[in-house]
Amino acid sequence: MIEYRNLRVALLGGGSVGAQVAALLLEHGEELANRSGAGLELVGVAVRDLDAERTPAIPAHLLTTDAESLILGADIVVELMGGLEPARSYILQAINSGADVITANKALLATHGPELFEAAEQVGAQLYYEAAVGGAIPIIRPLRDSLAGDRVTRILGIVNGTTNFILDRMDVNGDTLENALAVATELGYAEADPTADIGGYDAAQKAAILASLAFHTTVPLESVHREGITEVTAGQVDAARKAGFVVKLLAICERIAIVDADGAETGEYGVSARVHPALIPAAHPLAAVHGANNAVFVQAEAAGSLMFYGAGAGGLETASAVLGDLVSAARRHVIGGPGIAESTHATIEVLPMSSVRTRYQITLTVVDQPGVLATIASLFSEHGVSVEAVSQSVSDGTTGSLPTATLVIVTHEATESSLASTVAALGSNDAVSAVDSVLRVEGL
Amino acid sequence: MIEYRNLRVALLGGGSVGAQVAALLLEHGEELANRSGAGLELVGVAVRDLDAERTPAIPAHLLTTDAESLILGADIVVELMGGLEPARSYILQAINSGADVITANKALLATHGPELFEAAEQVGAQLYYEAAVGGAIPIIRPLRDSLAGDRVTRILGIVNGTTNFILDRMDVNGDTLENALAVATELGYAEADPTADIGGYDAAQKAAILASLAFHTTVPLESVHREGITEVTAGQVDAARKAGFVVKLLAICERIAIVDADGAETGEYGVSARVHPALIPAAHPLAAVHGANNAVFVQAEAAGSLMFYGAGAGGLETASAVLGDLVSAARRHVIGGPGIAESTHATIEVLPMSSVRTRYQITLTVVDQPGVLATIASLFSEHGVSVEAVSQSVSDGTTGSLPTATLVIVTHEATESSLASTVAALGSNDAVSAVDSVLRVEGL
Repeated sequence: MIEYRNLRVALLGGGSVGAQVAALLLEHGEELANRSGAGLELVGVAVRDLDAERTPAIPAHLLTTDAESLILGADIVVELMGGLEPARSYILQAINSGADVITANKALLATHGPELFEAAEQVGAQLYYEAAVGGAIPIIRPLRDSLAGDRVTRILGIVNGTTNFILDRMDVNGDTLENALAVATELGYAEADPTADIGGYDAAQKAAILASLAFHTTVPLESVHREGITEVTAGQVDAARKAGFVVKLLAICERIAIVDADGAETGEYGVSARVHPALIPAAHPLAAVHGANNAVFVQAEAAGSLMFYGAGAGGLETASAVLGDLVSAARRHVIGGPGIAESTHATIEVLPMSSVRTRYQITLTVVDQPGVLATIASLFSEHGVSVEAVSQSVSDGTTGSLPTATLVIVTHEATESSLASTVAALGSNDAVSAVDSVLRVEGL
Repeated sequence: MIEYRNLRVALLGGGSVGAQVAALLLEHGEELANRSGAGLELVGVAVRDLDAERTPAIPAHLLTTDAESLILGADIVVELMGGLEPARSYILQAINSGADVITANKALLATHGPELFEAAEQVGAQLYYEAAVGGAIPIIRPLRDSLAGDRVTRILGIVNGTTNFILDRMDVNGDTLENALAVATELGYAEADPTADIGGYDAAQKAAILASLAFHTTVPLESVHREGITEVTAGQVDAARKAGFVVKLLAICERIAIVDADGAETGEYGVSARVHPALIPAAHPLAAVHGANNAVFVQAEAAGSLMFYGAGAGGLETASAVLGDLVSAARRHVIGGPGIAESTHATIEVLPMSSVRTRYQITLTVVDQPGVLATIASLFSEHGVSVEAVSQSVSDGTTGSLPTATLVIVTHEATESSLASTVAALGSNDAVSAVDSVLRVEGL
C-alpha cells in the first residue's frame, strides 16, 4: 500500500447527499487515494443540529456545529447545505483561507456565481460544481473544457427530474397533472412543497448556469424567462401525442443573431435562456427521456449534436459527481493539474475472454422428431449453460430424408468457455444439422 | 481587445482533421484567446509532401516538412498524423522538450499509451486525447475526471461509425453486408480498405483506451478480444429484429468479480475488454443510435446509467475535440489549472424573451362557419407570423347558437412579441370563442 500525503476534507451539510459522500469517502478511501495521488481525510461534517442530523453513514465524532473552525483547517471544502446563506459566506471564507471548494448548490451559483468565481480567481483557488446540474451526468466539464474550442449554438435540457416524471406520467399513463404530482410525491420524486420544481425555478437556476458556461459569459438568473408546468393540461398532452409530439419542460439556451430595426442581421450575437413547457417531436432523442431522468442536448458549430443522458439528482448520483470533483481537486493539489498518470496507480488483472459471462442467442437447424428438444436441453445443461427461452419454428426443410426445424435458444448468463464447449457439443450431435448463428446478447 | 501572451502551437499532419483545426484556429483566434487567457499562435503545420498536402485551409507559408524543428519551438504540439511512427517519436520529442501534447491517435494510445503517459509524467507535461474516442463526444474527461470518484462497472460503446452505419442499413433497409458496405464506401463512411473498421480493429483500440481510463489501470490492446462484423448475415439481422433485438458492434469493458475453482467469489476484481457484434434489446438507448453516430453507455455504482451520444469522427467533429484540448492546455499554461474565470472574459448581451424566435402550436375554438379560416389566417399574417399547418377537427360543440370547431395551427419561426400580439388579436376576434392552448415547439 502506497503512503500518500493527506488532504483534509470538510463537509458542510449532512443531508442525503452529504451522508452518501461521507459514506463513500470512508468506504473507498484507498481507491480514491490511488486515483488522486493523495489521501482524502474526512475531518468533519458541519450540521445545524447534532441530534437531528445524526445518521448511521457519518461517525458521530465527525459531526460538528462549528462550520467556521472546520473550514479553517481544511484543504478542500465540500458545500452541500443548499440555500444562499450561510452557504455563500462559508464558501467565501473557505476560498479566502486557501481551500478549494466543491458545491452542488445551483441556487447559489445561479445567484452569486460571478462573485464566487471572482473571489476564487483572486486567490488562485478552484470552484468545482459538476453536481449542480444533472446529478451524476457529466455536463459541466464537457461544456467548460471539451467544447471550449467550439461554438455552442443551442442547448435543450431536461434538467428537472420531478417535472419530467410528472409530464411522462401524463403522456404514458394519461394522468392529470394533479394525479401525476400525487404519484411523484408518494414515490419521493416531489417534495412536500413542489413549487421549486413544478414552478420551473430549479430548472431556471440550471439554465442560468448552463448558459453562462456554454456561452462564456454571465447570464443572471433574473434574465432567464421562466414558466413552470402548472398550466399544462391532460388535454394538451393527449393532443400533442396524437400530433406526434411530447410535452417536456425544457431549459433552452441559445446564441441568437442580433437584428436591427429592419430585421437585418448586424453581425453581433446575443444569448438567451428560458424555461417553459414545449412540444418536441416524438422522434427527437429528448422525447425518449422517461421518468425522473435528465438529459442535455447540445448543438455546436463543429461538434454537431451531442446528448448527455442519465439519472437526475438522487443522493447517490449527486455524490458520484461530488466525489469526481474531489478527485480532481486532490489531483490539482498534488501535481498542479489534472492527473495524467492515474492509469499507472493501480494494476488490475485483465481477464481473458473465457472469463466473461454474458448471454447468448443460438440458432440451430435440428432434425424435427420427438425427443430432440429434450436432447438439446440436456446438452446445454451438461455444459453448465442454463436456457432461458427456446422457440421453434415450423418444419422448414429436410436433411437427407428427415424433416428439419429451426430452434432459437436464448441462454441465461454463462461463461464464454462453457458456451464454446456447448456449441462444440451441439456441432457433433446427430440431432443437429447445423449451428446457424451464435450471437451474444448485451444490455439486458 | 485584450492583449494576451502567445502560446506557440505546432500542428503535425495536414489531413482532414488538421486542415479543420488550422482553419478554426485562424478564424476564431480572438474568441479562443478570450477563453484560454492566452493567444494560440499557429506557428506551422508539418506535412510529408509540401505539394501533395497543400490545402486552401492552411496558408502556404505555414507548411513545412521539418517536423522536428517545428516541435522544438512549440509550447503545444498537436499530433494528427495517425499511425505509430513517426508519431510516437515526435510526441516523445515534444514531451521531452517541455511541450504539452494533444493527439487524436487512438492506435498509438492503445499501443504505446503507458510509455507516453509515463514520459509526460516524468517532465510534468500533459497529454490530451479527447479526440481519440467518439469524435466530438466528450467521453475522455467524463471518465477521467467526472467519474473518478465512482466505480465504473460496465461500458457498452458504439465507437465505430462505419460499422454502425452498415449494421443500421442492414436493419432498417434489409441490405446485405456487401450492399451496405458499398453504400458506406460511396458516401465516404468507409475507406477504400475497410478492414480497420469492419474487422473491429478501430473499435478494439478505443476499447483499450476506454477500459484503461474507466478502470484506472492498463488494458493492453492485445488483451482486447476482437471480432468484426464480417460474419454478420442479413438473416441474423432480420431474425434479431423479429425477436425484438438490434445487432450492433459493441466495445464492452467490464469489471468482473474473480471466482475461485469452485465458482465462489474471491473478493478480487479483474477487468475485461472485448469487441464483437451483439444483440441488444430494441428498447435499449443504444438501439436508437442510427447511421454513423457513436454512443457510449456507462454504468457506475453511484452514478447509475449514463449515455453520451453524438456524431462519430468526421474531420470537423474531431477538430472540435482537438480545439477543446487546446483551450485546456492553454489555460493550464496560464494559470496552472483548469480555467475558472472564463465566464468573465467575455460579455455578451443577454437578450429578453421577446427576441427569441421559435415555433408555436396554437389551439383555438372557433365559430364553424364559412370564411373563418381565411379570417384567422390573415390575422396571423398581419402580425408577421407565418402559418405552416392548420388542422381542423369536426364540429364539436356550440357557442350560443353557433356550432364550433377546433383549429390547431402550427407556425413557422416567429418572435415571442409577434406571437403575443397575434394571440391578443385572436382573443378579441369575434370568430374565436377561445384560445385553448399556446405551446412552443422545439427540437425541429
